[in-house]
Amino acid sequence: MQNATYEPDTERFLADLDTLRRIGAFRTGVHRPTYAADDMESRHWLMARMEEAGLAPEMDGIGNVLGRHPGPGPKLLAGSHIESQNEAGWLDGALGVMSAVALARTGLPVDVIAFADEEGHYGSFIGSRSFTGLLEEAEIDGLANRYYGKTLRQALQEAGLAGRPRVLMEAGRYKGFVEMHIEQGTTLEAAGEQIGVVTGIVAIWQYRIVFEGQQDHAGGTTMAERRDAGLAAVRLLAWIDAEFPKHCAERTVWTCGRIALSPGAASIIPGRAEVLFQFRDISVEVLERLDALLRRGVQESNRRERCVATLKVIGQSTPALCDPAWQAALAGAAESLAPSKWRHMPSGAGHDAQYMAPIMPSAMLFVPSIGGISHHWAEDTAPEDLAMGMRVLAEGARRFLAGPA
Amino acid sequence: MQNATYEPDTERFLADLDTLRRIGAFRTGVHRPTYAADDMESRHWLMARMEEAGLAPEMDGIGNVLGRHPGPGPKLLAGSHIESQNEAGWLDGALGVMSAVALARTGLPVDVIAFADEEGHYGSFIGSRSFTGLLEEAEIDGLANRYYGKTLRQALQEAGLAGRPRVLMEAGRYKGFVEMHIEQGTTLEAAGEQIGVVTGIVAIWQYRIVFEGQQDHAGGTTMAERRDAGLAAVRLLAWIDAEFPKHCAERTVWTCGRIALSPGAASIIPGRAEVLFQFRDISVEVLERLDALLRRGVQESNRRERCVATLKVIGQSTPALCDPAWQAALAGAAESLAPSKWRHMPSGAGHDAQYMAPIMPSAMLFVPSIGGISHHWAEDTAPEDLAMGMRVLAEGARRFLAGPA
Repeated sequence: MQNATYEPDTERFLADLDTLRRIGAFRTGVHRPTYAADDMESRHWLMARMEEAGLAPEMDGIGNVLGRHPGPGPKLLAGSHIESQNEAGWLDGALGVMSAVALARTGLPVDVIAFADEEGHYGSFIGSRSFTGLLEEAEIDGLANRYYGKTLRQALQEAGLAGRPRVLMEAGRYKGFVEMHIEQGTTLEAAGEQIGVVTGIVAIWQYRIVFEGQQDHAGGTTMAERRDAGLAAVRLLAWIDAEFPKHCAERTVWTCGRIALSPGAASIIPGRAEVLFQFRDISVEVLERLDALLRRGVQESNRRERCVATLKVIGQSTPALCDPAWQAALAGAAESLAPSKWRHMPSGAGHDAQYMAPIMPSAMLFVPSIGGISHHWAEDTAPEDLAMGMRVLAEGARRFLAGPA
Repeated sequence: MQNATYEPDTERFLADLDTLRRIGAFRTGVHRPTYAADDMESRHWLMARMEEAGLAPEMDGIGNVLGRHPGPGPKLLAGSHIESQNEAGWLDGALGVMSAVALARTGLPVDVIAFADEEGHYGSFIGSRSFTGLLEEAEIDGLANRYYGKTLRQALQEAGLAGRPRVLMEAGRYKGFVEMHIEQGTTLEAAGEQIGVVTGIVAIWQYRIVFEGQQDHAGGTTMAERRDAGLAAVRLLAWIDAEFPKHCAERTVWTCGRIALSPGAASIIPGRAEVLFQFRDISVEVLERLDALLRRGVQESNRRERCVATLKVIGQSTPALCDPAWQAALAGAAESLAPSKWRHMPSGAGHDAQYMAPIMPSAMLFVPSIGGISHHWAEDTAPEDLAMGMRVLAEGARRFLAGPA
């Protein structure tokens, strides 16, 4: 199971990924929703791979699969999730789990974990939150499948998991956590790079902006008389479009995903408009600056418009910063194996690592996504990029465990 | 039935309106949807009022009620509709019908008409279109109630109208048409005026603007990489908001009644946006200028954005201009009875008069709406404004029939 240089067997790693993609295959991707038969088959298949790698596998009462390294001393925890979005890609999650198995095979002291339901078929990160003690039984009682309403309790029962204990992280066991993942964007691909050393997982600050005006007949009401809530919304969004670029950071993103005008008919002036708006950044300072800017925009709207705009915070999460020593170890490995073909970058999407980062030194490694495609069966990454990711992961983990040079 | 000066009996006119509002009373308004029992009761009640006024009433196969003046020579046709929107106001339509009855009572040669279903419970202006020969049997076969699906044929059967002939306008009988109506806006009220001499019924030019971008994860996609269809829509709408005021006419109105972003989720960059946009004006020249402006905006959007915008015309109606001689007669009457308390103004909403205007000299007279409220049971107009409207209508009709001074 061990070799002197901890070189990973990239061919076997790629072969494992290829075998796994046949479980629940859908076109060129997979369909393995959490707790469905194919998902459970993949979890049992994973346990067999863990055993082959010399780990002691266990599946717990939420479906988390943990393979424990048998030796003494501090360990790394490595992994991701193994279920997929519906009719989605073969690498999202699976890459992190199978690279962790390959990492364990090198002989490094590594526990491998597949967190259940990162993709949120039943809840929000219930696997990683269970492992870190953040998931209560009462929350499990209340959850159901977001697509077709089956309760989580029923799904656990059918998957044979009801009544099993849930495994909590063992205090003092881990020196750090690492998760390899596809980028789910085109930054690396566009730059011709192979590795992203993740600086952290951005926070998402989400808002609902409601505009209250006056519903009126679009024919009988002059422009001067109108209190058009939809127009007030358009004006604020145009203001955001003009102002945010002046105040954002390099990787800040902001999105209006929904605009709903009421009643939404061609010949009726909207009396009400509702906008979903969010921005993401890794820096709390930037987030707070944009929050203040947005509030100023809403205030200016209320001074300017004949509609009342109100801002409601839906959520303001905390950025999950990656550990500097971990980043240095992975950056050093990347520069030695793929010189000038890597970068530091934040993760714009959420990952299980964000629940590990507050409790142990954590890191993430990105490999390119072809065309940036994600959450779709066409998702893919070139084999040489997968292999390079595996090699940087192993060398970075070796360096991190060895401590600063 | 006749008097020398053709002075209307405004007290009796107001009393008639008050009696009519008790049929299907709903709060301070009425609920008389087309062909419902209360609507049919009001049509029969109207026929009795026509008989009292010396007219020969008939209800035809679409529910139109026509009261014919028995005398020789050219006549005026006057009227509107008698059914209401659901749980709506007591004057919308009823005012035009009862003022026509009062006009006939003055002794002027007037036929009175109540067109069926102007409010569109079953179709689009089926009463006035039937009267002018624009409604085919095949269209009747295909229509159904927009709220609960009952077929028009079934409704006509239940109302006892099935099998009755439909009355077509008698060629050569009319010198002109006139319809008095509430303004359904606040222009007169805001100016402290009592009478609007309508210049015409505006045309509505309606468009669907579709933006095709790229649906992406709101976290994984940088601002530079995005093809955000929602943002492209907001930018075009903001451009319209800035440019239309520079090119519109005094009474032009423009409205975006719906913005739909797909898929419409907080964390997904919209891949598609659909906008319903319309503008209204009485001048074809203005309409064409704004159409060209809108097309330029869409072209500039396609030069500037990474999304493709396409413009689809949903409808481009023709303005229904009121007859100049009619307008002069009504304006002269207004200036003599309510000096400086009247104005020329277009109608932003549709009326039966728009189907009369292409085939005979037509006119409309507006009285103020309290608070501009319309299509709601709170709709109302002060009795003195109703009486003034009646007096101007009678004097204007007298002048129009007398010919130019």
